[in-house]
Amino acid sequence: MLKTFQVAPLGSELDDDIQHKIDFKTKPPGALGGLECIAFQVARIQRTLVPKLEKAQMLVFAADHGAVDKGISAFPQEVTPQMVANFLAGGAAVSVFCKQHNVPLKVVDVGVKVDMPDHPLLSKRKVAYASQDFSEQAALSLEQVNQALQAGADEVDACGEMDLLLFGEMGIGNTGVSSCMMSAITGTKPEETAGRGTGLDDAGVSKKAQIIATSLKRAEQELNKPVGEWAPWEVATQVGGLEILAMSGAMLRSAELGKPFVVDGFICTVALLFASKLQQAVVDYAIFAHQSDEQAHKALLQHFDATPILKLDLRLGEGSGAILSYPIIKSAVTFFNEMASFESAGVSNAS
Amino acid sequence: MLKTFQVAPLGSELDDDIQHKIDFKTKPPGALGGLECIAFQVARIQRTLVPKLEKAQMLVFAADHGAVDKGISAFPQEVTPQMVANFLAGGAAVSVFCKQHNVPLKVVDVGVKVDMPDHPLLSKRKVAYASQDFSEQAALSLEQVNQALQAGADEVDACGEMDLLLFGEMGIGNTGVSSCMMSAITGTKPEETAGRGTGLDDAGVSKKAQIIATSLKRAEQELNKPVGEWAPWEVATQVGGLEILAMSGAMLRSAELGKPFVVDGFICTVALLFASKLQQAVVDYAIFAHQSDEQAHKALLQHFDATPILKLDLRLGEGSGAILSYPIIKSAVTFFNEMASFESAGVSNAS
Repeated sequence: MLKTFQVAPLGSELDDDIQHKIDFKTKPPGALGGLECIAFQVARIQRTLVPKLEKAQMLVFAADHGAVDKGISAFPQEVTPQMVANFLAGGAAVSVFCKQHNVPLKVVDVGVKVDMPDHPLLSKRKVAYASQDFSEQAALSLEQVNQALQAGADEVDACGEMDLLLFGEMGIGNTGVSSCMMSAITGTKPEETAGRGTGLDDAGVSKKAQIIATSLKRAEQELNKPVGEWAPWEVATQVGGLEILAMSGAMLRSAELGKPFVVDGFICTVALLFASKLQQAVVDYAIFAHQSDEQAHKALLQHFDATPILKLDLRLGEGSGAILSYPIIKSAVTFFNEMASFESAGVSNAS
Repeated sequence: MLKTFQVAPLGSELDDDIQHKIDFKTKPPGALGGLECIAFQVARIQRTLVPKLEKAQMLVFAADHGAVDKGISAFPQEVTPQMVANFLAGGAAVSVFCKQHNVPLKVVDVGVKVDMPDHPLLSKRKVAYASQDFSEQAALSLEQVNQALQAGADEVDACGEMDLLLFGEMGIGNTGVSSCMMSAITGTKPEETAGRGTGLDDAGVSKKAQIIATSLKRAEQELNKPVGEWAPWEVATQVGGLEILAMSGAMLRSAELGKPFVVDGFICTVALLFASKLQQAVVDYAIFAHQSDEQAHKALLQHFDATPILKLDLRLGEGSGAILSYPIIKSAVTFFNEMASFESAGVSNAS
């Protein structure tokens, strides 16, 4: 049986008070646009009129994917451990942005194909040396799926007192795995879920969509059910990726603990999609960092009725978009807590 | 005669080296999207492969506008000095965001209708107690226009060694003044340049457009020239606003000094439009912070072929969008300076 989570939907008791506090800041109503929505959401999640975002933690989950052997990425698989080493050494985009914002970074190996050397910033939670090639067979066993979900949840618990969690991922081929999971969950055709990833050309994207279609057909035959009708455990075992499922587990645990978390790009949003099939309320705790350049991300954000903070045509993953959005999220809480009201500042309101 | 500036267009000598440095960072080519454009621009402006953005300064220019008497704003004119006091006391949006990012804030009074008390963060450069009502007569004398341009330039000089300037404004009615200046410069109809400002309803916007149309017709008759054909000094004297012209002067001086500057919302972008009519090359030094909710801002950004960093439906002014974009601009320089290259990190490049 799939590991279970219990996420409480957000209460609306404070909604009027939160909105009132926003509206009486020294600015025209609504003038801080998207920031007002973030402030409202964080106050709602933390159930307080004085929310705080002082301690944040970035968790980057890494794993490899058997289907890479079929050619679904522009980069070779050896790049996964190389980039993990780069994260740990402080040379990757997510590393330098976390340093800029003084947010600690931890990398969690849930399925990299090789053993990684010990490092203070590395958590070793390897479930397998990569998933199986899902174009040939089920990607994961149910036990492996549960281990990945548990690893994500445990890492959130290990963070201790935190106000905000940021999630990212590394895994050559995982844009393709995410497309496949999205197709499996929503029934959207592979031609619409498959995109350029880290830099495939038209022929590469077309080949990727073909591999996804083949894989879904194989699984449909095995399950004797069309895509869109699979149970979550069937999606996860047939076409799941370990770092994606670990992110789903981390999101669900954050939400269980009543903590907001930041959703990075396409892959991270697919992790949320999967998580939402276990507990719909998890979405209430998600702050959407950005809309990436990956074609299916826009549709997926629309599925969640989400307006992401940034739209910078990023397509890097790693949690890079999440950490770039972090100062804006902090600004939302800052205006909510620190701006004067019309009354306190002696400023006349609109006539 | 209108004050003159000499802005050198950017050289392209380093372009190949800058692009090479960006492309060999440990990420797929182009994967940092808009950040790569900002890094390229800052390196180009600073003419170096190791740009720095360590010292930034926010300058907020404030003034009042005679045309407010005709009803072009949702807020009463007394709010200009009240909000200046709020900036200085640390209670406004721009104040709390500047504090968040450790960027010093200075307010420059170039035309507030009342005298402001002394304050360490206030620079008193009052040119007039508000402009004249441009629906009745020319808004400013040529001498006043030059004083405003000079005040902006002087304030930039007074900042001393700075890597980045951020500009903002305060002045009840200045969205309408900006719409009028945009119409005067570009010939765009008032119905297309007039928007909601801080919160006008449909009737208010329609009335504002009517006042702008009346004002432009009055000036056309006085100048005996249709809009779109006025010289810059004619635009500035007939329908200019003091804080807007001061921002133009500050932008031109920043560019003369080879310093990048951040353009806030619609009003600030109109200041750039005016500045670009004096020296086209000033645009090369402009980093566009955000696309605001004001309807004409989108068209104006397209005029500059600009892709702003944020699109958060802000409509506050004050430089609030500029300071919100600041950490993203810093991230661009951070990745350019601090990320590892494929070679230094031992990461395999795409096949």
